[in-house]
Amino acid sequence: MKNKIVVALGGNALGNNPQEQLELVKQTAKPIVDLVEAGNEVILAHGNGPQVGMINLAMETSSESEANTPEMPFPECGAMSQGYIGFHLQNAIREELKNRNINKSVASIVTQVIVDKDDQAFTNPTKPIGAFYSKEEADKLAEAKGYTMVEDSGRGYRRVVPSPMPVDVAEIETVKTLADAGQIVITVGGGGIPVVAEGNALVGVPAVIDKDNASGKLAELVDADYLIILTAVDKVAINFGEPNEEWLSEISIEQAKQYMGEGHFAPGSMLPKVEAAVKFAASKAGRKSLITSLEKASDGINGLTGTVIVDK
Amino acid sequence: MKNKIVVALGGNALGNNPQEQLELVKQTAKPIVDLVEAGNEVILAHGNGPQVGMINLAMETSSESEANTPEMPFPECGAMSQGYIGFHLQNAIREELKNRNINKSVASIVTQVIVDKDDQAFTNPTKPIGAFYSKEEADKLAEAKGYTMVEDSGRGYRRVVPSPMPVDVAEIETVKTLADAGQIVITVGGGGIPVVAEGNALVGVPAVIDKDNASGKLAELVDADYLIILTAVDKVAINFGEPNEEWLSEISIEQAKQYMGEGHFAPGSMLPKVEAAVKFAASKAGRKSLITSLEKASDGINGLTGTVIVDK
Repeated sequence: MKNKIVVALGGNALGNNPQEQLELVKQTAKPIVDLVEAGNEVILAHGNGPQVGMINLAMETSSESEANTPEMPFPECGAMSQGYIGFHLQNAIREELKNRNINKSVASIVTQVIVDKDDQAFTNPTKPIGAFYSKEEADKLAEAKGYTMVEDSGRGYRRVVPSPMPVDVAEIETVKTLADAGQIVITVGGGGIPVVAEGNALVGVPAVIDKDNASGKLAELVDADYLIILTAVDKVAINFGEPNEEWLSEISIEQAKQYMGEGHFAPGSMLPKVEAAVKFAASKAGRKSLITSLEKASDGINGLTGTVIVDK
Repeated sequence: MKNKIVVALGGNALGNNPQEQLELVKQTAKPIVDLVEAGNEVILAHGNGPQVGMINLAMETSSESEANTPEMPFPECGAMSQGYIGFHLQNAIREELKNRNINKSVASIVTQVIVDKDDQAFTNPTKPIGAFYSKEEADKLAEAKGYTMVEDSGRGYRRVVPSPMPVDVAEIETVKTLADAGQIVITVGGGGIPVVAEGNALVGVPAVIDKDNASGKLAELVDADYLIILTAVDKVAINFGEPNEEWLSEISIEQAKQYMGEGHFAPGSMLPKVEAAVKFAASKAGRKSLITSLEKASDGINGLTGTVIVDK
């Protein structure tokens, strides 16, 4: 049974430096290739939180030092992170395919995700990026560069950028062509490089598109059967940590919405995953979202574990 | 008359910072889209000298600062440069296509180029990268990191890395699939991320693959009709700057080799371009290499200018 599957991998699963990343992608590659070996068509999306944060910090630090390298806008840092992560990820998947004598190509596409410049997120930046600063430094940055700086968890001030909703994937035809040819595509890295349309041009904007939402939009555009949102646990729970805790197997969109309304899922953690999962499952009859751990992805597709959200 | 064309664009043509690059890619896009509009199939390769140098310097500077970002190996910096350049380049080409109502997709592929670990270049690193250091700093770096440091043009000491020959392009099937589907592919950025095969794995190595050689290998692998090597002048000259200076139109491989032997072309400048051009033209009957300026690329394909090297 062949399914077209978009897998949304977390950036935190990729470590904090190149050595860690090289090791972690090997672990990531195995369950991904399990899905491929079972006959599924796999398109891989991934986060880039720690990686783009590191690149952004390095670029800022160096531009303010004697090295005097140019200031690097945030979308360009995101583009760099797609190259950096894609290199390791495609390599690890390539090796795992070869280890199993599966003759398939894998490649990463530098991918832009189009957002609406009138998205209300632009009036309310919420996503913290980069280093922590003192109040004084933060005020200077706000003044000099127009950054929005907010106090973050008592650890200092950070720049926040908007988190708009994805509208389209600029390189979608490339993704479709490769997937249709049976290749494994790595795309919308970090939620995609955020761009807005200005006439015929696409212009980078400092923003972070939630990678689960970007993956859901990607899954809609390629007409996927499954959106797999990977997380640290095998299933989603209601009444999490309480005596009446219940792990969910298959739930309807209505049930998922009810549980969201009852506040069962933590904002900034499970809630946005369930929201993205519901959005994809509701986009067309037959589409299913699966929330589970990387290790259980194949079992989840086979109905053995994970939380499936489907329009019943 | 439809030709399959690999165009090798210089990294110096892309500027030294993101603002410059954004402007320069617009100029680059026009002659590229001219080739597309004339019915040719275009695959675009590009250099990354200034860009990977800047990224490498920023990563080194930041890792040695209080920011304490991780040390970033040179191949990973190259992967970042592919994302950074690809983002701007694919965007500019996309816009130019839309301006002309040409409905074609364009995308950049994170691309690894495989080299032979026994390539003799590894015993004789020659390609300078990154910052200039004092003798004392250079000795420290050589000791601490095993870098080969050499005195460069009286301006100080620099790290040198090997410049091995390209053997294969890891993502070649992806490039072929997209080109066959009529899409414009940006690939082997900076000569490709240099990797060596170790069993089923590909492992990044600190090296710089000459982008004209990598473009020539790419052109062979996709079975291109033309390899266009872009340079600052419209044609190649013999007796350059002398009273008997002669601009070359179409020459045979034999003639090109004779001129190379007579020392007409400057090492590190026109010589490697002519060498890469000869190599491609000699690889199969009918293949042509064209050396010309970006602005004259279309005229060159139409036989109006440029230096063509062909097996006659």
